[in-house]
Amino acid sequence: MTVLQTTTTDQPAREDIDLGAVLHALSDPTRLEIVAALDSRAEACPTGSFEVPVSKSTCTHHFRVLREAGVVRQRREGTARLNTLRRDDLEARFPGLLDAVLDAKAG
Amino acid sequence: MTVLQTTTTDQPAREDIDLGAVLHALSDPTRLEIVAALDSRAEACPTGSFEVPVSKSTCTHHFRVLREAGVVRQRREGTARLNTLRRDDLEARFPGLLDAVLDAKAG
Repeated sequence: MTVLQTTTTDQPAREDIDLGAVLHALSDPTRLEIVAALDSRAEACPTGSFEVPVSKSTCTHHFRVLREAGVVRQRREGTARLNTLRRDDLEARFPGLLDAVLDAKAG
Repeated sequence: MTVLQTTTTDQPAREDIDLGAVLHALSDPTRLEIVAALDSRAEACPTGSFEVPVSKSTCTHHFRVLREAGVVRQRREGTARLNTLRRDDLEARFPGLLDAVLDAKAG
């Protein structure tokens, strides 16, 4: 039996999520597009599964910013990086903020 | 009678306020401190009246970012620049966003 190795990459604990870092992460239109897409999906999504008008390396950069800010949880599964939105952590830390931003985006 | 000349400096109209620009403006701790202070004051405030741990030129820069994003309205009165928070415009454009951010800061 083959077991895929799963590791979680560095990201802040819930209590260390910083407001400025979250707002900065969400201030970029491409990153906000990614966050809205993640919010609409039930499953963890590979980094390459988002239709964003940027290069692969720029996309990787955006995911790193989102991860380091605590907006997105990223785990490696084999060669893939799977992403989920840290909705519960964000809601616990800054109640209402994520929804206010996503509502503002949806306008 | 001396009449002070009052002019309003360039800032976006309500409908042109951009979400990314607002989030970027609020993502800096000093700017967020200024916004929270403005929110607590009833009157328009001179730029120099905020106790922030930055140089005068950095403070001027922060106010420019806030003004250009549409977060703050700035008008000149004689040699002073008077600032007010554009709460009504922000609330109309992105309902709940400013309060969610200020609550998160106060958190």
